[in-house]
Amino acid sequence: MKAVVLLSGGLDSTTTAAIARAEGFEPCALTVNYGQIHTVELEAARRVAAALGIRDHRIVAIDLASFGGSALVGAGQIPKDRPLGEIGAPGDVPSTYVPARNTVLCALALAWCEALGASDIYLGVNVLDASGYPDCRPEFIAAFERLANVATRAGTSGTAIRIHAPLITLSKAEIIRRGMELGIDYDITHSCYDPGAGGGACGRCDACILRKKGFAEAGVADPTRYA
Amino acid sequence: MKAVVLLSGGLDSTTTAAIARAEGFEPCALTVNYGQIHTVELEAARRVAAALGIRDHRIVAIDLASFGGSALVGAGQIPKDRPLGEIGAPGDVPSTYVPARNTVLCALALAWCEALGASDIYLGVNVLDASGYPDCRPEFIAAFERLANVATRAGTSGTAIRIHAPLITLSKAEIIRRGMELGIDYDITHSCYDPGAGGGACGRCDACILRKKGFAEAGVADPTRYA
Repeated sequence: MKAVVLLSGGLDSTTTAAIARAEGFEPCALTVNYGQIHTVELEAARRVAAALGIRDHRIVAIDLASFGGSALVGAGQIPKDRPLGEIGAPGDVPSTYVPARNTVLCALALAWCEALGASDIYLGVNVLDASGYPDCRPEFIAAFERLANVATRAGTSGTAIRIHAPLITLSKAEIIRRGMELGIDYDITHSCYDPGAGGGACGRCDACILRKKGFAEAGVADPTRYA
Repeated sequence: MKAVVLLSGGLDSTTTAAIARAEGFEPCALTVNYGQIHTVELEAARRVAAALGIRDHRIVAIDLASFGGSALVGAGQIPKDRPLGEIGAPGDVPSTYVPARNTVLCALALAWCEALGASDIYLGVNVLDASGYPDCRPEFIAAFERLANVATRAGTSGTAIRIHAPLITLSKAEIIRRGMELGIDYDITHSCYDPGAGGGACGRCDACILRKKGFAEAGVADPTRYA
């Protein structure tokens, strides 16, 4: 049975794709080039799809950068060196939040899912070691699943659409341990928001800080190439 | 105050844009080139935006045709000459349904809306004289509005996002009468799913049949150019 997996090429979505397979699905991977300045993650997504033996990997483009409103699409500075206590603090949505991005990504996943005749979508959001984005919370998953089941022919004709977020309550260290059990080589994944010209990680953005913390807490050598 | 209006260039979305203005908003129009075979509607959207004096009109592209699953993106035949009683009959979702299309369109409208600092989105869906698409029903509007308010920084920080569907319970004739009160020249709009090479309407698809019926019931001369 096929499932659509949103694959950015980062640590979380890579682990999620491996979990979808372990749960018995054939993962079909969807990567979205939405205008992120760190386009190097698209290459990571290609590497991951190949390493996981995913046969159907689509990269679709949608220009969210033309709307602006986020440091990830070039509007504003990417925060650096924030203390861990600040990252994901309640009420603080950082400048790297992209307006409605996960709604757009899930909508595209839903479109492909229904066209495939599938009814399962996986995404790698989590709230514990995350930046405090509203569209990474369980409330978002529940509201999107509800929408999916009134918005589609599939959902309204007896085939329930399920949105799976298997990492939602895991810490970064737990995600890494789970992925390593599943044989993931995290060396090929990319998390950094602000990589150098050679594609190396900055080590200082929220994504790098949370990733580093995860490897440290998991007691695993960090395979990330830093710039 | 700005509002994002989804504008296809058809009769319904054109009327909706005029209503948004009449309700006190400055309409910002979003047209999506999603791979519809009737790309002539993009030209209609440009004409409508110009005629309504809309200052900010964006046309964004997203390739839903690569997913397939709909006659509107070239997968399958567009139904012709269906009796009125068949169009929109309960339980019948025709081949022109595009998987999750309105979810994708609303997600993009939400992204732009939040980036603009606006909180109102208008779309021209209606259920009475419509083809029976699940994502044109009040349940869809309510579920999307609920999602928008948990998915975004705006929605979760005290600014309620509102999804307006002012045509939802109107007949096509009522929509036309309302639009004419607002000064719309329907000559510049395009509804046909299967226009001829010169852009003329086929007169036989569901969109043409519903549009014709609307002008007849409104007692207004049909300005549509048929192929």
